[in-house]
Amino acid sequence: MAEYCFGVDLGGTTVKIGLFTSEGKLIDSQEIPTRKEDEGSHILSDICEAIDAKLVDRKMTRDDLIGVGIGIPGPITKDGSVLGCVNLGWGIFNVEEKLSQMLGGVKVKAGNDANVAALGETWQGGGRGFEDIVLVTLGTGVGGGIIIGGKIIPGSNGAAGEIGHIPAVVGRDAEVCGCGKKGCLETVASATGIVRETKKLLAKSEDDSSLRKKKELTCKDIFDAAKEGDKLALKAVDKLTFALGKSIAGIAAVTNPQVIVIGGGVSKAGKFLLDKIEEYFNEYAFHATKNVKFALATLGNDAGMYGAAALILD
Amino acid sequence: MAEYCFGVDLGGTTVKIGLFTSEGKLIDSQEIPTRKEDEGSHILSDICEAIDAKLVDRKMTRDDLIGVGIGIPGPITKDGSVLGCVNLGWGIFNVEEKLSQMLGGVKVKAGNDANVAALGETWQGGGRGFEDIVLVTLGTGVGGGIIIGGKIIPGSNGAAGEIGHIPAVVGRDAEVCGCGKKGCLETVASATGIVRETKKLLAKSEDDSSLRKKKELTCKDIFDAAKEGDKLALKAVDKLTFALGKSIAGIAAVTNPQVIVIGGGVSKAGKFLLDKIEEYFNEYAFHATKNVKFALATLGNDAGMYGAAALILD
Repeated sequence: MAEYCFGVDLGGTTVKIGLFTSEGKLIDSQEIPTRKEDEGSHILSDICEAIDAKLVDRKMTRDDLIGVGIGIPGPITKDGSVLGCVNLGWGIFNVEEKLSQMLGGVKVKAGNDANVAALGETWQGGGRGFEDIVLVTLGTGVGGGIIIGGKIIPGSNGAAGEIGHIPAVVGRDAEVCGCGKKGCLETVASATGIVRETKKLLAKSEDDSSLRKKKELTCKDIFDAAKEGDKLALKAVDKLTFALGKSIAGIAAVTNPQVIVIGGGVSKAGKFLLDKIEEYFNEYAFHATKNVKFALATLGNDAGMYGAAALILD
Repeated sequence: MAEYCFGVDLGGTTVKIGLFTSEGKLIDSQEIPTRKEDEGSHILSDICEAIDAKLVDRKMTRDDLIGVGIGIPGPITKDGSVLGCVNLGWGIFNVEEKLSQMLGGVKVKAGNDANVAALGETWQGGGRGFEDIVLVTLGTGVGGGIIIGGKIIPGSNGAAGEIGHIPAVVGRDAEVCGCGKKGCLETVASATGIVRETKKLLAKSEDDSSLRKKKELTCKDIFDAAKEGDKLALKAVDKLTFALGKSIAGIAAVTNPQVIVIGGGVSKAGKFLLDKIEEYFNEYAFHATKNVKFALATLGNDAGMYGAAALILD
């Protein structure tokens, strides 16, 4: 009887491949490089090879598989077609059909990587036990995923959960975002954003701050200084948490989730960060949405593998 | 064979009851008063009486009914329980079970009225032909509904689509909302909001404006004056459309709908309003969400009846 599945997190640099039991236990994982040459044409065959080798290694066959789930770094349609993944070199094709064919008919389900990570956190991570969750990923940029009734909300063209591009800052203070617009949440609430905002604060004022000694200012430096009471660092953190708390209040007014899960590198600041976001959330949130819980993501870089497995085991 | 259904829109003043064919054609409708006395205990029996009378009138029986859908002015759980409707005098009970029992076992489905109206507009109104829509209702307040894959997103406690309470204005300019918070979208984008903002503009400036002659300033007066080029009226309209366009860009980054349907009394300003909202939307929207269409709601006060019927016919 088929009792296992693979969860594949296909990234721009590496592919993470996890072997899961049908109960969602990760029993084996490996990483292979993402070969982007020749328009990414080796990527799927590399994945197949790794899967088959793992099966041999485990004395299993393809018949032991319920299926293979895969998260893709780009928009994907409901029928499993990728609409071009610039950073893989891929054009437009149905990745579910193609990978399934290459694996001799094993069931394949694909999803957008950020949404799949949100599903992973819902299934086995910080959102475990809930079915309506919003994942907010604070990394180099700001991403996210919306899960309702335990299912990913992909959006009409795969762009739901693009939380980083909620307009958050207007007026003179708004910085240009990577997407070309001004004042997106990402410009203030990402690791990159808080570093830039802190540099602006340092340049504008002459206030004493332990951050002035740092050569290469990082997001971690800023949070560490803020935790020790550095006023300028606290000001920078306040800008981030204000924008996030207010934006999350808006998201809650739209989707009314049970839990907000905060992940990504910035979330390593932990409860200190969570409490400050929640404070601003409570200031701006509609009363009927206020009983939402705030939690930290727990799966880290494995969320994508877990979510990909969840696509299949659902 | 059962080929008909009733769609019931239960409001605080009147109950609208529509008889629909299974294809969604409204063939008969009536209104009865909402009797709120005795903790609203007559409301459901009045509805049953009206339904049974209509069936006799049409030479039909309860066996001809696929079911009865009903929109309720308050939060409702997934299993059909109302959690208290202050303006009906209702406490907590399962309205689906109770109404079904009173109708001798006819299937009953209930939903929140704003969400049900959004479903109606999706099914037979301004969102027809789409399955991922956001309805924005600009009336005395600002309401809304989120439909994804043709289904209502109710939210974990019935508060999804509370678009009017997205934080939209910060700082000194933010007015207190009916919900108790400051700067909600509703404070600037409702009929009440634009009248207040216009009065503020009139008081602050000495600019000439045709609106100064009005004794009782209305939302319609303001839009009429703006259409004729009145600068002060245009400024007021600009404040409304800026807040709406920016907030809708945020909603689109979260849910990525195919179409935004604008309804409610303010939407009588028509294409003039729509174009201005769309202009600000395009300024703030993430590129992958920009191909969304803007449409006007078409069902007016019947949207609730249509949506209630859709709950059953789905």
